[in-house]
Amino acid sequence: MRRVAVAGVGMTRFGRSDLTLVELFAEAAMEAVNASNIKARDVQALFLGNVLGDFEEGQLNLAPLCANELGMANEVPATRVEGACASGGVAIREALAWVAAGFYDIVLAGGVERATAMDTPLATRTFAMNSDARYEANTGVTFPAVFAMLARLYAQTHGLSLQTLKEQMALVAVKNHRHGARNPLAQFQKEITVEMVLQSAMVADPLQLFDCCPFTDGAAALVLASEDVITRLTDKPVYILGVGQGSNGALIRQKNPARIRAREAAAGQAFRMAGLKPSDVDVVELHDCFTIAEILASEAMGFFPYGEGGRAVEKGETTLGGRLPVNPSGGLKAKGHPIGATGVAQACEIVRQLRGECGERQVEGARIGMSDTLGGDLATVVDIIYGV
Amino acid sequence: MRRVAVAGVGMTRFGRSDLTLVELFAEAAMEAVNASNIKARDVQALFLGNVLGDFEEGQLNLAPLCANELGMANEVPATRVEGACASGGVAIREALAWVAAGFYDIVLAGGVERATAMDTPLATRTFAMNSDARYEANTGVTFPAVFAMLARLYAQTHGLSLQTLKEQMALVAVKNHRHGARNPLAQFQKEITVEMVLQSAMVADPLQLFDCCPFTDGAAALVLASEDVITRLTDKPVYILGVGQGSNGALIRQKNPARIRAREAAAGQAFRMAGLKPSDVDVVELHDCFTIAEILASEAMGFFPYGEGGRAVEKGETTLGGRLPVNPSGGLKAKGHPIGATGVAQACEIVRQLRGECGERQVEGARIGMSDTLGGDLATVVDIIYGV
Repeated sequence: MRRVAVAGVGMTRFGRSDLTLVELFAEAAMEAVNASNIKARDVQALFLGNVLGDFEEGQLNLAPLCANELGMANEVPATRVEGACASGGVAIREALAWVAAGFYDIVLAGGVERATAMDTPLATRTFAMNSDARYEANTGVTFPAVFAMLARLYAQTHGLSLQTLKEQMALVAVKNHRHGARNPLAQFQKEITVEMVLQSAMVADPLQLFDCCPFTDGAAALVLASEDVITRLTDKPVYILGVGQGSNGALIRQKNPARIRAREAAAGQAFRMAGLKPSDVDVVELHDCFTIAEILASEAMGFFPYGEGGRAVEKGETTLGGRLPVNPSGGLKAKGHPIGATGVAQACEIVRQLRGECGERQVEGARIGMSDTLGGDLATVVDIIYGV
Repeated sequence: MRRVAVAGVGMTRFGRSDLTLVELFAEAAMEAVNASNIKARDVQALFLGNVLGDFEEGQLNLAPLCANELGMANEVPATRVEGACASGGVAIREALAWVAAGFYDIVLAGGVERATAMDTPLATRTFAMNSDARYEANTGVTFPAVFAMLARLYAQTHGLSLQTLKEQMALVAVKNHRHGARNPLAQFQKEITVEMVLQSAMVADPLQLFDCCPFTDGAAALVLASEDVITRLTDKPVYILGVGQGSNGALIRQKNPARIRAREAAAGQAFRMAGLKPSDVDVVELHDCFTIAEILASEAMGFFPYGEGGRAVEKGETTLGGRLPVNPSGGLKAKGHPIGATGVAQACEIVRQLRGECGERQVEGARIGMSDTLGGDLATVVDIIYGV
């Protein structure tokens, strides 16, 4: 098995876009290609994460259309993967396998989504299709409700008052907006206060508007290369040290769902493959689709004991300058969440952090970074560890 | 790179089903698992082809729900791939890579679709989402129209009268229904005549009703295993000798689209990897979504010169007992076309043919078989060569 490295990354500004999916992806992809000192025709395979192209603009089989737009040859396989909001992470992991195995030397992995092409009721309904249609979505439960229930379960399990948890969650939102204000590609670049969170509209008790990430358009891409060619492409390679993907079934079938077993599996695989442990990680991008989701993720990945993720936020451990900066990009909460692209955008941030290219949101001296992407009703998680 | 073999296969009866996607897939998957003398918990990864689960039953992120239904552990990655009607072929190719590379020894690949869960107008519209939304579907062109235009282009290019081509196409339909009548899992098990085809309702001139495959529910699955473990699972391994996947852009960007460059690329990759040539192949399952599509495929795969595929059908070369039996299962035309499952169902037929298990539709002495799956506006093709 060969080592695999990231040669270059690209990402569009997140927010609203009038570009088509193909055009939006091409923008990110060409940035990644150019940053890797290659031509698009040098790419030997494309893996693309996208969740709702059919509802967004009536577009399925998106990957070969993107490959063609980029000028790739008929010989280049172009494959769409869909793992709900973890689709971007899945795309990277597939690309990694083909390069590590020796089939290809240079592969493009990316993701794209145009969530705002749908109005809010349609987006809410179609996002809910990522939960179990038999037992969950058909009861009327949508994702804010799922995470509201998880927040209540979490508070109850760990003996926290709901008010304490709400204040911890608000601190997550404040932190990620503070980080996002330093990211010129973020959807929201404004700082907020705890008071603003706690006074925002109620969405699904205890989650308020500022506990929730937005609907977002955006694309991200990265070029993966084998150890055999990487030094020809860049003098700042970022190696993929470990990767993991875990699975689970419908929420009602999960024992203590707030623990997120698919994530424990994914993180465990990634750490074992890398030969590292959580305390080795310097910077993390994780799946904060809701503020409670960041707390849950930071625990299941192994950074904090169960029940103590919120306290770590209170103590400032996860802010820029803290012991383990989490979501320096602003996270899904402030950077935005174009669902098929999110896992790839996390990778872009980690790569730029490890290269020291993040300006006023730079985590000083970061050498090991980790990304974490969650899909569906806690059913798919992809975790990836990067190092320089 | 390790050799990879098929240990066992499974397939539901094709036609209409009231089962959910998860249930339907589980039926095929458990047959494949049992046929491989393993337990579902021995499977280390799942790749699943599905195209329209969101429109069929509001279900995205289908793969981990299927893995959970089968009793697989949280550690098992479960990934949906979508390459339009070629999704099943894409799933097999991904599974192959992970086993060949040495990541896993036992992987399940499958596909499932419930096209009849949509009424015909919705199915027609959503199928058209597999073409280019910018340049093609938005003009009102659906797939029968695409293939009708290809038929006219083909006749013109090769100096055939439309009446001659219509009779050749009718013979494809008659042949595949004759084969399907010998397949107890086929959607249509009735023989038809040339007159019935030529007197059937006009769909998109020159394609009539019996030139078109049906909407179908169904699932198929196969267990792939490395050469290191295959002999523990079965004494009748069928090896994957070669695989290829090609891509193309919107139809209007393709030069002479009837030649199907993505297929030339896919077949070329598969033959090179296998070290074989078209004349080495004993039996073929190829993508006859319309009768003209079978003729086009048989040429681009290299079995007949361009312009002579129809004549080969006239001469009986592609019928059971002929020089190169094509679609002994009945093909998409008679066996049915549950789009996400089709590529895997083709693999099931080839494996059973090479094992000599096909009863009255058996191709005598077949040792090398090939499958071919097409997706979208000729934008994705996966070709696979199997051998014993």
